[in-house]
Amino acid sequence: MVQTAATNKTETDKPENPLEKLSILLETDMKRVNQLILKHMKSDIPMIPQLAGHLIAAGGKRVRPLLAVAAAQMFDYDGEDHCKLASCVEFIHTATLLHDDVIDESEQRRGKASAHVIFGNEAAVLVGDFLFSRAFQLMVEIGSLPILKILSNASATISEGEVLQLTTTGNTRITREDYLNVIRAKTAELFAASCEAGALAAGGTEEECAALRSYGENLGIAFQMVDDILDYRTPDAALGKNTGDDFREGKMTLPVVLLLKSASEEEKEFFEKAFLRTETQKTGDFEKACTLMEKYGIFEKALHEAESYGQQAKDALTGFDKNPEITSLLSGLIDFVINRRH
Amino acid sequence: MVQTAATNKTETDKPENPLEKLSILLETDMKRVNQLILKHMKSDIPMIPQLAGHLIAAGGKRVRPLLAVAAAQMFDYDGEDHCKLASCVEFIHTATLLHDDVIDESEQRRGKASAHVIFGNEAAVLVGDFLFSRAFQLMVEIGSLPILKILSNASATISEGEVLQLTTTGNTRITREDYLNVIRAKTAELFAASCEAGALAAGGTEEECAALRSYGENLGIAFQMVDDILDYRTPDAALGKNTGDDFREGKMTLPVVLLLKSASEEEKEFFEKAFLRTETQKTGDFEKACTLMEKYGIFEKALHEAESYGQQAKDALTGFDKNPEITSLLSGLIDFVINRRH
Repeated sequence: MVQTAATNKTETDKPENPLEKLSILLETDMKRVNQLILKHMKSDIPMIPQLAGHLIAAGGKRVRPLLAVAAAQMFDYDGEDHCKLASCVEFIHTATLLHDDVIDESEQRRGKASAHVIFGNEAAVLVGDFLFSRAFQLMVEIGSLPILKILSNASATISEGEVLQLTTTGNTRITREDYLNVIRAKTAELFAASCEAGALAAGGTEEECAALRSYGENLGIAFQMVDDILDYRTPDAALGKNTGDDFREGKMTLPVVLLLKSASEEEKEFFEKAFLRTETQKTGDFEKACTLMEKYGIFEKALHEAESYGQQAKDALTGFDKNPEITSLLSGLIDFVINRRH
Repeated sequence: MVQTAATNKTETDKPENPLEKLSILLETDMKRVNQLILKHMKSDIPMIPQLAGHLIAAGGKRVRPLLAVAAAQMFDYDGEDHCKLASCVEFIHTATLLHDDVIDESEQRRGKASAHVIFGNEAAVLVGDFLFSRAFQLMVEIGSLPILKILSNASATISEGEVLQLTTTGNTRITREDYLNVIRAKTAELFAASCEAGALAAGGTEEECAALRSYGENLGIAFQMVDDILDYRTPDAALGKNTGDDFREGKMTLPVVLLLKSASEEEKEFFEKAFLRTETQKTGDFEKACTLMEKYGIFEKALHEAESYGQQAKDALTGFDKNPEITSLLSGLIDFVINRRH
């Protein structure tokens, strides 16, 4: 029996989670999305599909394209714009990842060596630019100015969020609100834009588009909060992500913000020292930080916050009953995102 | 009497060159362009206007925005789209410069320390992304899908050209055609798109837009060829550019392609050694390379090629007689670009 690497389950198994179930339900559309991605990744410059393919083939979960397609299919859409939109959203996301990895100096992404490690920083920056341009070309093909507006606003917001994150890195005085501003921009915005533009492509009303935007935004916030918790918890292999990255980079995430509110002066002093002087971090510092988080129940507190955004995402789905199967899976996706272990 | 740093002339002097004359003739539009640039550079994240302003205030010549505005004014355009377009083009150009400087590790740009030296590579990459997104937001504001198409195609072509340049760096077997493909994409495309989109915004016919595109493209090729020649000739201070950069980086430009066709085996061996192993370049290597270029008349040959593209740019202006003053200045700009000494 063949094992599929991504899910570690047998082929005959039933899909385990709402993400897989959505992928199967929307298989025809998602195949078209993949075709479009491959088609538009092409270039006469061989390094471009090589590098882009390295990341895209590395098997992301295609969450954002799925959201765009699902949002459109909540209105039983029978056009093709949502597939173009979905590929466009994946290109924007991939471009962001390429630039992120250069900046974070991450050595792994999706369980493989990061593109910039293999191809060099220069190529990663430039191919990121190329994918970003391709995304806009695809949008122009769709030919809808309102969709172009949503996605160009999203792109600007994402890069603002990334710059904001850069300026908050290592600054232990930042608040929960600062943190929220960062993740709302760098992560939740593209989730929100994917859902909103998907609904718009399918002819959703202003209210429906706004509701799905709210779903995407709150799901994105919950998603990033859980991601930030897992960076202090996941074993290396599971996500193919280096656990402890955020700690080593001095990234101000929710667990850190919450810990610094609870810890004693002495603990705070240890944490700030290890966290702020990333170059002098010693073996065991990260583990000690994790122990402190356990001690003050930081993970539970952070998870509780993620759940409250999850609830807002669920509320946003109220009244969408044209395609109840998708509505139910999108609702299930919220719990899945919150309860995942990697 | 006040001296203006950029031109080193007194304020009462008459404008010396077609670029200045165009700026004065189109002053009202260019002031509006500058306002739009400042307005759209704004962000709640202070680092963004700081970093973008560092480069934009560093006083580029605004060649591309001028071309966009001039192309529109050849049709006596009285709308505002050409100014938005011109700011958008300057944002794309600035984003490219920011990413270029990270990649080239240039320490100077426009006579000042490069942004990445002051703000770090991460910020330079991200603010580049932000400016690029802002450019698309501005295009969406214009609301013309054909203009969006021209500029999104241009963006994709530019990044392809940059990747191509990366893969040809240090490869002494590349041909004149390979070099042309690089500069056509990385430089000439944005000149071409600026002119074409400017004409389109002003209601030019398909033929007129194509002719102005051809003007921009050929001017851009000539411009880059001369830039590449000057990198082996200009004294440091004039352009605020590090002379010899291309040599140190192993960049395959026209003078190198031509030299390798003319030099003796022994000279080629020296050149390839110094050029390919950039880390072992010795003092005097660059000067020796320049001497070889003088010996074989490489600068004259390269200039001759630039002139032939300049002629094509001039030919493209034939028949534009609605605003003869602009036509004449655009023609003069070709000679100015070719004959400049820095």
